[in-house]
Amino acid sequence: MEQNGAPYDVGFVGLGVMGKSLVLNLADNGYRVAAFDLDADKITAVEAQDQAESQSRRVLGCPNLATLLAQLTAPRLVVLSIPAGAAVDAVCEQLLAAGIGPDDVVVDTGNSLWTDTVKREAHYRGQFHFFSTAVSGGEVGARFGPSLMASGDARAWQRLAPLWQAIAAKVDPDSGKPIERFEPGNPVREGEPCAAYIGPAGAGHYVKMVHNGIEYADMQLICEAYHILRTALGLTPAEIAAIFRRWNAGVLDSYLMAISAEVLDTWDEASDGPLVDVILDKAGQKGTGLWTAVSSLELGCPAPTIAQAVYARALSGQRAERLAAAELLRGPEPVALSDAEREALIEQLHDALYCAKICAYAQGFQLMASAAKVQGWTLDFAAIARIWRAGCIIRAVFLQSIAAAYERDDSLANLLVDPFFTEQLHRYQGNWRRAIAQATLLGIPCGALSASLAYFDSYRLGTLPANLLQGQRDFFGAHGFARTDRDEGARFHVDWSAPGRPVRPA
Amino acid sequence: MEQNGAPYDVGFVGLGVMGKSLVLNLADNGYRVAAFDLDADKITAVEAQDQAESQSRRVLGCPNLATLLAQLTAPRLVVLSIPAGAAVDAVCEQLLAAGIGPDDVVVDTGNSLWTDTVKREAHYRGQFHFFSTAVSGGEVGARFGPSLMASGDARAWQRLAPLWQAIAAKVDPDSGKPIERFEPGNPVREGEPCAAYIGPAGAGHYVKMVHNGIEYADMQLICEAYHILRTALGLTPAEIAAIFRRWNAGVLDSYLMAISAEVLDTWDEASDGPLVDVILDKAGQKGTGLWTAVSSLELGCPAPTIAQAVYARALSGQRAERLAAAELLRGPEPVALSDAEREALIEQLHDALYCAKICAYAQGFQLMASAAKVQGWTLDFAAIARIWRAGCIIRAVFLQSIAAAYERDDSLANLLVDPFFTEQLHRYQGNWRRAIAQATLLGIPCGALSASLAYFDSYRLGTLPANLLQGQRDFFGAHGFARTDRDEGARFHVDWSAPGRPVRPA
Repeated sequence: MEQNGAPYDVGFVGLGVMGKSLVLNLADNGYRVAAFDLDADKITAVEAQDQAESQSRRVLGCPNLATLLAQLTAPRLVVLSIPAGAAVDAVCEQLLAAGIGPDDVVVDTGNSLWTDTVKREAHYRGQFHFFSTAVSGGEVGARFGPSLMASGDARAWQRLAPLWQAIAAKVDPDSGKPIERFEPGNPVREGEPCAAYIGPAGAGHYVKMVHNGIEYADMQLICEAYHILRTALGLTPAEIAAIFRRWNAGVLDSYLMAISAEVLDTWDEASDGPLVDVILDKAGQKGTGLWTAVSSLELGCPAPTIAQAVYARALSGQRAERLAAAELLRGPEPVALSDAEREALIEQLHDALYCAKICAYAQGFQLMASAAKVQGWTLDFAAIARIWRAGCIIRAVFLQSIAAAYERDDSLANLLVDPFFTEQLHRYQGNWRRAIAQATLLGIPCGALSASLAYFDSYRLGTLPANLLQGQRDFFGAHGFARTDRDEGARFHVDWSAPGRPVRPA
Repeated sequence: MEQNGAPYDVGFVGLGVMGKSLVLNLADNGYRVAAFDLDADKITAVEAQDQAESQSRRVLGCPNLATLLAQLTAPRLVVLSIPAGAAVDAVCEQLLAAGIGPDDVVVDTGNSLWTDTVKREAHYRGQFHFFSTAVSGGEVGARFGPSLMASGDARAWQRLAPLWQAIAAKVDPDSGKPIERFEPGNPVREGEPCAAYIGPAGAGHYVKMVHNGIEYADMQLICEAYHILRTALGLTPAEIAAIFRRWNAGVLDSYLMAISAEVLDTWDEASDGPLVDVILDKAGQKGTGLWTAVSSLELGCPAPTIAQAVYARALSGQRAERLAAAELLRGPEPVALSDAEREALIEQLHDALYCAKICAYAQGFQLMASAAKVQGWTLDFAAIARIWRAGCIIRAVFLQSIAAAYERDDSLANLLVDPFFTEQLHRYQGNWRRAIAQATLLGIPCGALSASLAYFDSYRLGTLPANLLQGQRDFFGAHGFARTDRDEGARFHVDWSAPGRPVRPA
């Protein structure tokens, strides 16, 4: 283990897949890193990989936390990449025992629940600055450029910002596209970094949670388009991959669209067929999608496309039941489409995917705005959209348009009423509707495409049938209602059992 | 205050709207009730109302809990009708201080969160039997026949059952319809009572919560049908009331359909127009719908129609935003329909409402089954359907068919695969699809109708596009996947960056 006594820029605790990748990324970017893991082999491994890949010689393995702290320039900066939950508390206590102090900063980069982060920031106040950063982009992102959502004490951010901006994914400011180079020792230094200070403790993890909720919606929308192309048109996975590649050259240009084409184009040697056809159709999930949907319900901020995506995964998981039901429940008879109808449906699906995606993102941004209101956060939605343009799973050219919308109006009521998106929705909604109508008649589920449309059609209507609903509630529960022709604060109630049903102030 | 020293059958604490109605109902049914409220006026009022309406002379006001307990036959039975939350704990402690004992039974009939009921049952074990009953049907139901969902210690149920079966709503066993008579002193004694022992502590309140979730879905579905009839066909509220009355004579026969017709047919003197047109379209909610949706997400048991109904209420609440958006966002151009098309759409909507309703109830029953599995409850779904046929808000002839389905097969995988419902869905799904396609093209939101259809179409398919989704997850997160041609426990992973993309065991 190399020991040279020189001060190190940052301490790193936890050298698993993510931690190791972040350490190597920091070293590639010129930072000297003192690294510790409970598993000594992992310490050796990160040093060895640094030597083999980058020869940076900027990584110092440390046998314990006290040694690690002793290597660091003050105020000290310690980054944790350890499992969310009790381990974070344990390491924080150990850092206190090892002598971390009030000016030092500890940064949690795990998948912590945002409310835990809020609690920890309060708990350690005065002892050290507990700071957090949600990291998106998986192993490759962490190694060569993640999207970083930081939150906590703003002064701690000053200390951390140069490092995070250095290692973050970069975006070409003109095209809005990621600048991607996956070369050890040769990091991307040009472009706009995908790292931002989101707000007070917990804000970054909340924003990351919503990112994942949007990711669920985006993936489900792509799957529905695939399903319709496959079932209604009988296209092969390779043919659909070609369509997705074409779409990926336009407004739908995104990482998820690109990898969907890759997955569809992958051949399986064992079955000598398209891989997708032998992948079991039971979707897994790790909770962030459902947390997002639960939060939207609790905040009363509609996110139906995200909830629908979570439910779609759950339904896919009930495969044994579905196989049994498939023997009993019939859908409509298949319909043969003409060549012109087939071409039209492909085009309609493109537009449907685009419009539904706009609505899913609008729901996510509304959700962040709702949470911010309740929590007292001031969120910069343009900045959030910008740091999602590279490094993370939902990276897409499309986010450039979202950033522009919030740059035009930072208190935009909803993405749907930004002039650009309004115009896009006006232009493409016809095809969106036709695609859903077609899938509906053909019996192909399109719950997420439809949930987005119901969101759009409800949001744009000045009158919804909740008037009847309020009438029902007054009838059975005497809940009362407001009137359109009176002050909204005045409540009325009908005496439903009296002759003539008089309407009276409640 | 009358004092006759004779033993009373039941003590009653809390004489608000619900408590008073239950007391009068018990007295009408021959039970002697010792009643207490913190507000002495309420004690006087219930005695006076008993005198005025029924002359039962079976209600004894008590000045405090000790007096109340002293009037009761042993083992003593005390019913609480007080606000959910801390008040329940406070009264339980006061009952202990007043001398309630281990053989006595305390029944909470408030809107308690089911998890609180579970905690209380454990907390008071050994001190008295804490039992609970969820009451549905509002004031009129409580007075002349509610639906009662009881849970807790099975021996306590033995003590309580005769009272609850006496006061509960009654159903004609042949028609499955409520036997309704709203006459003080002349309760309905014939028919099947809508009171049942649901299971261990909390089960009854959970089932009631799901009842309310279904109620949200049912109301929203009716509102969507109304909205389409109103917007696509330009019908007046009175014309729609007539259609709803016609529907209410068939498979859609239900309390909610009946009262919807009543609401639509109500004239407002102040505006000299249909009342519904001046009711503000901002829906209120009290939480049980969102609790149901949250529970479905947490259990991974899809309830998309219920969630969609909760979101629809939330969206209706954003009225100021909607009014602003209505100025900016256009939908499709209106389309004039021929008379034949108009007639067809009405028929299609009937069938759509029916099919979507089947799916919403299926979701609710699946949710109860999921919770039962997790909680270790054994729920009798046929009995639950039977006690919902009268007294509660979702009472409907339709529940007779659900009861029959679970009587045919008490471990039915899903309502949709019961032979009766399968046949109904086969028969009516074509119109369901056509109604949604039409509303989709016309720009009228139908999120709940669509969510039900996506549920149906997903449930009945042996293959869903989650195979692509699992491929995406493996691509970006190395999550691995199972294969259709291997044991489901075996996980595979593609080395996506290697030439030829080899598929390897994970």
